[in-house]
Parts: sequence; C-alpha cells; structure tokens
Amino acid sequence: MNLEAVHTYFTLLQGRIVAALEALDGGKFRSDAWTRPEGGGGVARVIEEGALFERGGVNYSRVQGASLPPSATASRPQLAGRAYDALGVSLVLHPRNPYCPTVHMNVRCFAAGEHWWFGGGMDLTPYYPFAEDARDFHRTCRVALAPFGAERYLRYKRWCDDYFYIKHRAEPRGIGGIFFDDLNEPDFASCFALTRSVGAHFLNAYVPILERRKDLPYGERERAFQAYRRGRYVEFNLVYDRGTLFGLQSGGRTESILMSLPPRVEWRYDWKPEPGSPEEKLYTEFLIARDWAD
Amino acid sequence: MNLEAVHTYFTLLQGRIVAALEALDGGKFRSDAWTRPEGGGGVARVIEEGALFERGGVNYSRVQGASLPPSATASRPQLAGRAYDALGVSLVLHPRNPYCPTVHMNVRCFAAGEHWWFGGGMDLTPYYPFAEDARDFHRTCRVALAPFGAERYLRYKRWCDDYFYIKHRAEPRGIGGIFFDDLNEPDFASCFALTRSVGAHFLNAYVPILERRKDLPYGERERAFQAYRRGRYVEFNLVYDRGTLFGLQSGGRTESILMSLPPRVEWRYDWKPEPGSPEEKLYTEFLIARDWAD
Repeated sequence: MNLEAVHTYFTLLQGRIVAALEALDGGKFRSDAWTRPEGGGGVARVIEEGALFERGGVNYSRVQGASLPPSATASRPQLAGRAYDALGVSLVLHPRNPYCPTVHMNVRCFAAGEHWWFGGGMDLTPYYPFAEDARDFHRTCRVALAPFGAERYLRYKRWCDDYFYIKHRAEPRGIGGIFFDDLNEPDFASCFALTRSVGAHFLNAYVPILERRKDLPYGERERAFQAYRRGRYVEFNLVYDRGTLFGLQSGGRTESILMSLPPRVEWRYDWKPEPGSPEEKLYTEFLIARDWAD
Repeated sequence: MNLEAVHTYFTLLQGRIVAALEALDGGKFRSDAWTRPEGGGGVARVIEEGALFERGGVNYSRVQGASLPPSATASRPQLAGRAYDALGVSLVLHPRNPYCPTVHMNVRCFAAGEHWWFGGGMDLTPYYPFAEDARDFHRTCRVALAPFGAERYLRYKRWCDDYFYIKHRAEPRGIGGIFFDDLNEPDFASCFALTRSVGAHFLNAYVPILERRKDLPYGERERAFQAYRRGRYVEFNLVYDRGTLFGLQSGGRTESILMSLPPRVEWRYDWKPEPGSPEEKLYTEFLIARDWAD
C-alpha cells in the first residue's frame, strides 16, 4: 500500500482536469485550500457563472480521522470506528446549456489499519435525450475498464444503475455509467491502476459530449425543465449519496461537499411532461436501466 | 385512545387553515386525494404561483403499516417493526415576498398496539430580520401551551431549537418556535387537547406577520437572498427531518411529502453577506438560539 503515490496521482489528476475544463470554458476555477482540525484537508477548485459551466467543482481531499463513520463502512462493519485515511478526487459539473448533461466523477482510496480499498466511477445526467451521448459515454467507460477483465464494465455498469437510483421517485438519477467500491483484489497495484484508468478516461468520456451540445440554442422551456430535473439531483445527493453523507458526517468542509448541488433549482408539484415531447422521451427511453454501450 | 376523534379534528383543521389561506391569497389550493396499497392515504392541498404563496401545501394523511420505520422510533426502539397507525396534518408555506417568512406546522398522532403518542409544533424561517415577527410568533406559541403548564413553552421551544438545527452549517434553520414528540402523559385527552391547541393557534401565529410584510416592496437582491436561504431549508428537510424521512421510508406519497421544498432555490459557493447589511443581521442576530418571547 503506497498512499503517497495515490496522493500524488490524485493531485495531478485534479490539476489536469481543471486545466482542460478551463480551456473549454474560457473562465478560471478558483482554488481554496482548507484543513480540518481532526487531520487532513483539501483543495476545492470551483467555477460559477462560467460561459459553459453554470457551477462546478473538482475537489481533492485527504482526511484522517479517529473513527470511520458508518457511511463509509456499510459493507465493512468490522472496520466501523477504526482510524482511517481517506483520499479522493470528486467532481460535479453543471453546464448552463440544458442540452449539455451534468456529470459526476469520483476516485477514492481508503486505508484503515492494514486494510485498504479503492472506489470510484463516473455517471452522466442528461436533461435532454441524445442516444449518441449515452452510448459514447458508456463506451468510454467500457474502454477504461477493458484492461481489467471483460466482465468488469458490465458489473460496474450494473452497480452504477443500482447505486444512483432515487427510491422515492422510482427513477434512476441519470443514464448511469460505472460505479465500484471496496476494490482490494488482486493487489494494491492493480486496483490503483484500474482507479487511474477511470480517472484518466473522464475527459474522453465527457468533453466530446460538451463539444457537440454546448452551442445548441435553447430557451425558457429548456431552462425550466433543467431546473426541475436538477431537483432530482439534489434529492439523490442529500438523501442517498454515501459520499455526501460521509463528508458531512466526518466533519468535511461543507462548501466543498455541497458544490455538487446545482446553481438554480425548481420544485413543482406533480409535474408531468407533455405526451410526445422530448422531456417525456427522457423519462420513457433514458431514465430506465438500459444497455447503452452495445 | 380515540383515533377517530383525532382523524375528525385533523381533517377539520386542514380545511379551516386552507380556507383562511385562500382568503389571504385570493387563489385556490388544489385538492388531491390519494391512497397507498399498504393501507391508508391522504389529501394534499397545494397552491403554486399564488399571489401571496409561491408554493405551499397543507396535507392530511393517515397511513397504516405493518412495520414502524426507524425514523419514527428513534426514542422508542422497543416499538420498531410493530404495526402502526399514523395521522397527521403537515404544512409548509413559501411566500413569494422575501419579507414574508416561510412557516412550518405539524400535528401528529401515532398508535402502535396499545401504545400511542402525539407530536407536533410550528417554526418560522424568516429571510429578513424583523424582531417583532419573531417575538409575536413565539408569544403565540407560548399562549398555545400556557394551559398545559408554565414550563411547557420553554421546554418545547428548546426542543425546537435542538431539532431544527443544520449540523453541517452549524446554523439553526430559522428562529424556531415549538416542537414536541412522544407526548403520552398524563392521558390521551390532555395530550390531544395540547395538540389541538397548537393546531388552533397556527393562524394566529402566522397570519399577522404575513399581513405586516406582504406588501413591502422588494427587488432582485431580496429574491436572490431568499433563493439562497431556501437552499438551507432543502438541506435540513432532506438530510435531517424525521417527518420527511418517515414519509419517504414508509412509502408515503412523494409529491405530498416534498411539497415542503421551496419553488426556486439557488446554491452559491462560499457566499457571505455584506458587513452591516440586513442579510448579515439575519445571521448574527436571528440565526442563533435566543429567547424571543420575553
């Protein structure tokens, strides 16, 4: 287990992603370094009111704690309460143009005593239905995992469908992607390599979609639907997301954790899309568990 | 224990409150009756884009279930998993004018086997600081509880401060009010009487504040601050609120439960009020636990 190598890679990854996103947007991400009294800290890189990104953040944090919170140990009850070291890069981007999907990516590494494990993934949340975008995103996820076994993509794709599911809406958060956790086999080097491959493929998975959609004209109707659908993002992140709950429970920096929340959101009572509209198509053809890569 | 009397009173209370609010707003609340397969149902009364209320709901529900969810039994672990009957009126009103505070009121009654208990309360969440509003709201709460013992108001006021606290912001949700739960002494009749008194004083506590503030002129700045502060309301309700979690966990009607969420919300990174502004005064003088009634 070499946590310093993970620290170095995660820091470089954050910088590389921010540089690429700044080039696309034309604006700058601010940089806020923070520390926490219990140990560790991080660097939040955040953009608001950019030309392309209405709000987004690419955060790195490494926190040490005396007692692993329950949200980190759902499948490792024997480690609850142990001292830990947690490193991760987490990003969420909310573009202004409703034809551009919101995206989330995370890579993380936990250590507790002699135990260690990696986790991560990326997933896409479109507002308007483009089959090409869903297919390409999933194909790039498959490419990222191909060196680690033929069955790996499908397993992590299904895990993603299970994880990003809004139970009280009986609806997935978006069109999925890949998700993995508790990865510690066969050895540290391979698990770290898989995690690096996920991080390294993020820009390939997302940027071509942005480039295709960012100049499409839109109006009030599309902005209103985007604001409404962003409400689902808030509901998932605050009610179900283990990363968010881990951050809030472990005394993380609230402003860094909640940069995942969208800039402008609307809730409307019992709203339904018009039959035959693109908004309805999002529900009927995209917000279902589906094999996108084939 | 006479649950039918509670059912009758809660239904009448819902109707009386909706009628008063409709008279104030000039618009109508829609009415949606619903049932749930596991037993029970409710009536959601909802207004959106009213002249006064941008969004609000006054819900009644009575649901039966085979297994009491954990969110209802935090202080009654011996009842977890028991069959239950839960009745309640719950309201949240989000006025459009940022000088009008958001308000929440709830009265509820649970029965599980031979056990029963009442709960409820009301609390105020202002966007702009008016000491008169906070004082009058708390004084009416005190009046509602006065027949039930001199110490009752202070106990329930402190319980409210403890309950409506956003840990990850180290900030109360608003200026509080009263909150009680697990009330089953000395007998059913007295507990029901106290609960009725809370319900009956809601309009007295809130309507005079609306009347004082609803015609104050406001602009973009006040609307932006309102949208930002509404984000805290969402954070509290989705991360901490037992009523919301009970509803979502017990298979309640999502659209009724989440009518508590505000219509338009904004999140901004690391926002701070201007020194000396009314927005700063809200934080320094109102969003602290304070004795308002004296």
